[in-house]
Amino acid sequence: MSSTRQSVLDGLFDFLRIPSVSTDPERKSDVLRAAQFAADALRRAGMEEVRLIEKEGRHPLVSAEWLHAPGKPTLLFYGHYDVQPAEPLHEWLSPPFEPTVRNENVYARGAVDDKGQVWIQIQALTQLMAERGRLPINVRVLLEGEEEVGGEFIEEYVASKPAHLKADAALVCDTEMFAPGLPTICTGLRGMVYGELHVEGAKVDLHSGIYGGAAPNPITAIAEILTKLKDAGGHILIPGFYDRVRPPSIEERAAWSRLPFNETEYREKEIGSSELTGEQGFDVFERTWARPTLEVHGIRGGFVGEGAKTVIPARAVAKVSARLVADQDPSEALRQIQEAVKAATPKGVTAEFRFLHGAAPSLTDPSSPFIQKAAAAMDELFQNKTVYIRSGGSIPIVGLFQKHLGIPSVLMGFGLPDDNLHAPNEKFHIPNLFAGIESVKHYLTKLGQ
Amino acid sequence: MSSTRQSVLDGLFDFLRIPSVSTDPERKSDVLRAAQFAADALRRAGMEEVRLIEKEGRHPLVSAEWLHAPGKPTLLFYGHYDVQPAEPLHEWLSPPFEPTVRNENVYARGAVDDKGQVWIQIQALTQLMAERGRLPINVRVLLEGEEEVGGEFIEEYVASKPAHLKADAALVCDTEMFAPGLPTICTGLRGMVYGELHVEGAKVDLHSGIYGGAAPNPITAIAEILTKLKDAGGHILIPGFYDRVRPPSIEERAAWSRLPFNETEYREKEIGSSELTGEQGFDVFERTWARPTLEVHGIRGGFVGEGAKTVIPARAVAKVSARLVADQDPSEALRQIQEAVKAATPKGVTAEFRFLHGAAPSLTDPSSPFIQKAAAAMDELFQNKTVYIRSGGSIPIVGLFQKHLGIPSVLMGFGLPDDNLHAPNEKFHIPNLFAGIESVKHYLTKLGQ
Repeated sequence: MSSTRQSVLDGLFDFLRIPSVSTDPERKSDVLRAAQFAADALRRAGMEEVRLIEKEGRHPLVSAEWLHAPGKPTLLFYGHYDVQPAEPLHEWLSPPFEPTVRNENVYARGAVDDKGQVWIQIQALTQLMAERGRLPINVRVLLEGEEEVGGEFIEEYVASKPAHLKADAALVCDTEMFAPGLPTICTGLRGMVYGELHVEGAKVDLHSGIYGGAAPNPITAIAEILTKLKDAGGHILIPGFYDRVRPPSIEERAAWSRLPFNETEYREKEIGSSELTGEQGFDVFERTWARPTLEVHGIRGGFVGEGAKTVIPARAVAKVSARLVADQDPSEALRQIQEAVKAATPKGVTAEFRFLHGAAPSLTDPSSPFIQKAAAAMDELFQNKTVYIRSGGSIPIVGLFQKHLGIPSVLMGFGLPDDNLHAPNEKFHIPNLFAGIESVKHYLTKLGQ
Repeated sequence: MSSTRQSVLDGLFDFLRIPSVSTDPERKSDVLRAAQFAADALRRAGMEEVRLIEKEGRHPLVSAEWLHAPGKPTLLFYGHYDVQPAEPLHEWLSPPFEPTVRNENVYARGAVDDKGQVWIQIQALTQLMAERGRLPINVRVLLEGEEEVGGEFIEEYVASKPAHLKADAALVCDTEMFAPGLPTICTGLRGMVYGELHVEGAKVDLHSGIYGGAAPNPITAIAEILTKLKDAGGHILIPGFYDRVRPPSIEERAAWSRLPFNETEYREKEIGSSELTGEQGFDVFERTWARPTLEVHGIRGGFVGEGAKTVIPARAVAKVSARLVADQDPSEALRQIQEAVKAATPKGVTAEFRFLHGAAPSLTDPSSPFIQKAAAAMDELFQNKTVYIRSGGSIPIVGLFQKHLGIPSVLMGFGLPDDNLHAPNEKFHIPNLFAGIESVKHYLTKLGQ
């Protein structure tokens, strides 16, 4: 490995060593350290006006610019330097914040989501500046540290339409390639409503022998509520929930049907379960990209220690989210969920869905020249035809850039389907790191021609 | 308070200070200390052959005897010196293992269940011996330290029918009075099957955006299974589960209907919920004493930390038990539950109900002279007519004494309905401690006449 490649990796590894878990208040100083790390790297690249945009109680934004290409387009780079929590820790084969290389992959929390891809952007800028002393187009950078907790600060900031975010398009590197070696642009993202379902029964924990048969059980109640929100076939039972769902076009469905996809392999190797689940009558792409879903992320109630305790707990809580698709509206979906929870609450308990955060779904037009040139750059570099897919995940910034800045987002992603996003043993494929850097360089060059 | 009363209380408080939580492997030495404490007190009372019966990996039994009343009956005293876990600790108003007196109650884990009632037995023997130099009948004592974890050791021991357990009846002090001042004998107990419901889906935690709509969710699956085991009306849906349930007799129902009971007060003050739940068509006594139930004691799965994590967890687990009534059989009930779980398991996950422990239900005949004399002793002491009730709880030893030793058990209990059994702020009403000691003394005297 050349010394340049090694130094690119060394920098990424230092970035990954910072446990910038934005959900964890105790990691606040680590999140700040990651912001400073990214800012320092942008300064070293030769970017200008590099600064942290700070606000009390918020993780900072990192802002930078280079605007010395008059007459050329301006591209706004977006990424996030915060990461998901690493739990459950015992399932990691190597420590989540000590990047470890195995089989051409670097394993660490944030490797692919999104520090590795932020590093692609920073390194592309670093190398272009080093090779040419300038960039082929104007570039602005806006990184956030709250993507994994709802991104409220960046939403507020973008909504204020600051003059120095003026750009022609955004470049977002936070998605994945459909398959190894297959360049991919993502044109649609799901939105989300995330909250906690709190259920309370008796005033205190009760003895299940004495009171079992007469006292309400919040765990049973939460189970009943959940099964009334979604049926066993994966169909959401919340009234009106599907009303605004826009079906994919005939062309989009046709393009999806040409994607290389082996459902058995997907089920066995990616998911690792005996069967796929979800709504009848929709294929896997439509179920995960173009249909809303309702998932329970965690649940806790009563005694979960070792052994047996015969208690009827006083309360239980579940973390629940709905993924939304165009043209669903997060506020309306929240209202629908809250009303459905109310209607599904069995007697003897109270239940409340407490909103934590939301994001609008997005759909972009692949005929935009910014998307067409990105595809052309990757076609040449990968020697393979770029495919257009959607993602089932949520990148709220895409909807915000559209809404407040009026610009489309180009989602060039270099993750792979088996990168264990949000899970133990998250990884990033090292060849994709370098292909990503070359792709972004090539794209900027094309935009500058 | 006289110095005798104070010393009775001091002894109990020392007993309560020992955190003999049998479910917690780290408390093993504390459980042993509680056994030694009880043995020492029996020795000081003047009991003979006092010893710990020990076995590797088990909490010891405490055994004692006094057999110098030829021609008189022999009564086997039973109680347990282990206690439930104290969690959730933050709900205790005073530390669970530092007994604290408020309003004539002593608050501590184990105050009523069962150290306070074991202390009644030991103090009755102590005082009779001190007052007369002898006991009016023959007495054997067998205390266990595993009542809260299934009582396997005592089951094994009693099943071996040791000669020195030979007795005419057992005296069990581990139940409650129906109301303050109302002497009570319990003639029926529910049995139990306790286990863990393990559900596994994908091989690792998955990103709910990428895979939501196609991957199985073990929390949703556990919710589906639970709602298929019991309907929203509290009726258990497990095939065959009610087949052996023996309905209470007309006389028993009539006696229950005469018990002083205010359902509104029970709901508001004891349970503290907006409505009572449970099976349609059965009153509260029948639902909690004579009908089987299925309860979830705890549940855990996925991310339950602060904030939002968008994960589809790989597994979830719930602690689940069924209370059984005569003539249900724990082994058969376990088989029925396991088969019902299998049938209720949705596609894409595996589910397994792992047995932790079980107990047979019991029903005793109130016409036994041992029960009639106990009632007569309490009638005189409390100046109130003793009532016969059942309990919804499980005291497995009662069924074991019947099965292996062929003796009936007399369940004289001195707890009160608001004693917070198995819950934070467990207490014992101090006047009941002393009334209990007098009752046991008076009962033994009557049996010796």
